[in-house]
Amino acid sequence: MRRKVNIGGVAVGGGTSVKIQSMTTTHTSDTEATLSQISRLCDAGCEIVRVAVRDEADARAIRTIKDNTSIPIVADIHFSSALAILSVENGADKIRINPGNIGGEEQIRAVADCVRAHGVPVRVGANTGSIEKHFYEQYGKSANALVESALFNARILEKYGVQDIVVSVKASSVPLTVESYRLLAGMADYPLHVGVTEAGTKESGIVKSSVGIGSLLLDGIGDTIRVSLTDDPVEEIYAAKRILRACGLETEYVEVIACPTCGRCEWNSMQLAQKVESRMFGVHKRLKLAVMGCVVNGPGEAKDCDLGIAGGKDKCVLFRYGKPFCTVAAADAEQTFLREIEKMLYEKENG
Amino acid sequence: MRRKVNIGGVAVGGGTSVKIQSMTTTHTSDTEATLSQISRLCDAGCEIVRVAVRDEADARAIRTIKDNTSIPIVADIHFSSALAILSVENGADKIRINPGNIGGEEQIRAVADCVRAHGVPVRVGANTGSIEKHFYEQYGKSANALVESALFNARILEKYGVQDIVVSVKASSVPLTVESYRLLAGMADYPLHVGVTEAGTKESGIVKSSVGIGSLLLDGIGDTIRVSLTDDPVEEIYAAKRILRACGLETEYVEVIACPTCGRCEWNSMQLAQKVESRMFGVHKRLKLAVMGCVVNGPGEAKDCDLGIAGGKDKCVLFRYGKPFCTVAAADAEQTFLREIEKMLYEKENG
Repeated sequence: MRRKVNIGGVAVGGGTSVKIQSMTTTHTSDTEATLSQISRLCDAGCEIVRVAVRDEADARAIRTIKDNTSIPIVADIHFSSALAILSVENGADKIRINPGNIGGEEQIRAVADCVRAHGVPVRVGANTGSIEKHFYEQYGKSANALVESALFNARILEKYGVQDIVVSVKASSVPLTVESYRLLAGMADYPLHVGVTEAGTKESGIVKSSVGIGSLLLDGIGDTIRVSLTDDPVEEIYAAKRILRACGLETEYVEVIACPTCGRCEWNSMQLAQKVESRMFGVHKRLKLAVMGCVVNGPGEAKDCDLGIAGGKDKCVLFRYGKPFCTVAAADAEQTFLREIEKMLYEKENG
Repeated sequence: MRRKVNIGGVAVGGGTSVKIQSMTTTHTSDTEATLSQISRLCDAGCEIVRVAVRDEADARAIRTIKDNTSIPIVADIHFSSALAILSVENGADKIRINPGNIGGEEQIRAVADCVRAHGVPVRVGANTGSIEKHFYEQYGKSANALVESALFNARILEKYGVQDIVVSVKASSVPLTVESYRLLAGMADYPLHVGVTEAGTKESGIVKSSVGIGSLLLDGIGDTIRVSLTDDPVEEIYAAKRILRACGLETEYVEVIACPTCGRCEWNSMQLAQKVESRMFGVHKRLKLAVMGCVVNGPGEAKDCDLGIAGGKDKCVLFRYGKPFCTVAAADAEQTFLREIEKMLYEKENG
């Protein structure tokens, strides 16, 4: 099992649930905008938020941010030991920095002493844009280069007594990302922060992140995940939740099984499926629904669903656990189905 | 290596490229609507199309469809040997049927004789709604039940001399889908049709399909893929292409690396990334572009990109293979970048 670290009260690793994180796109020193984005991220289900620290104003802003939100805050710092220390002193719950590029022994020791004193974990890592020069020269752009580069930074911290370390090895190439994390998982017991870097816009980024993060999670690799999308960060949280659900790692939700419809479909099951899915996305109760175009797959698939509906020419049949209990006119299908869902949710809550 | 089958001139298996397929949602006998949808699917990049055959009119419509399109057509039939035979006689390039549920020996032999005579392959398979009863009773809803149920149907066909068989084992659960295909891949050499069944609406279905199909493809499993979405089937093709690209299995396209932006970003890189991605989606030339929020990751990530752009406060820098060659005002960045892309595409084509 991987080491467990405590990020402002949220555990990562050690067999705990996979935590969802994102990063704000605001200037951190603009605390109003940053807090507003953090609040939207929390509402969507984010569990850890990272903020960029470019200067002293950003580092000091963490104090205000911490005073106004309860979610753990990670400070993302490049190159500067002073900003890392200032961030921790202002309440950062974790820092993301590579000690290999913050200067000499004095700087590294100062950061290490600071995070140990505050009980703050550190994420180190490599992505394909930040592989340490000598590993890049030795291995090229490869899994070995990413992993060795990340472990090199982790070992520097350990030398100075820091144990609470999270590691990442992100590539923008999905196969390289998966290969790198598989290699890393076998070489060290640090909790792993998993993601595909620079995955791109929402449409292609969701697919790249789902393939990359999803295949690692299915193999049991990953303690916290970050979906990177060139879009509103709230979209990253939605995508992350869908990935966890797809991998069977989040089970308290309303799953909507829906067929793609085909030439056998005689009613608008598509519209109903979309409506039900979007209405139920935020409901944290375990319920499995089926919206099926026709009776060929309908009852079979609905066998292990709490509630299902399948269409015929003019009528739809509703099932509970695969057993029909009600036939309605297609025109009334939506209303009846939604009412039955509410009933079931009520029963789950109260029975 | 897996067996190779020929579906109307398109090879599946035998180490050939992974083929993208979808299924129409129209009534097949409405040939005008069906052909119109097929034409949109082809334009999007679909390589094999399946149609539902519910009755004789649908089966006979295949003739008209085949006369008006060149894409291979797969007839999807439930339970009826007569419709299977009629579909093949009307030009279907492949049929999807489970011989275990079409009747007795006479029916099976008739279908087997027909597909052999026409050189038409058959897809057999199980999904969680159609596991053969005795395997369900023996194994429950499990990978073993899906695989044994699918292989049971394949073996019936082989007994009657049919060799060109494609197999699928789709579950609506992603972990079960992945486990089933992994098991099947080790047990038989049939080319594999891979998909997650009843994956749901576009938003959750893309994630489920990406995780499921993607992790199998990364492991080298899958000869043809079908993304099932409760949406316009053209969306299935877009998603399938993105999955192949994410897995490194389609390389002739314009890849857009884009960072998610953070508090370091001083210009609207997000909007440019989205515009470039959507403009370039259909361009089949191998080009790698980077649109980066800031100079921290920009040049590093852009190192192996043909062309990149990274923003500063008022100015953006353009790179070729990581080397800056031009600085422009942020206001002119979009125009300059798009022009440089066109130049590179022209060079690729002509030089």
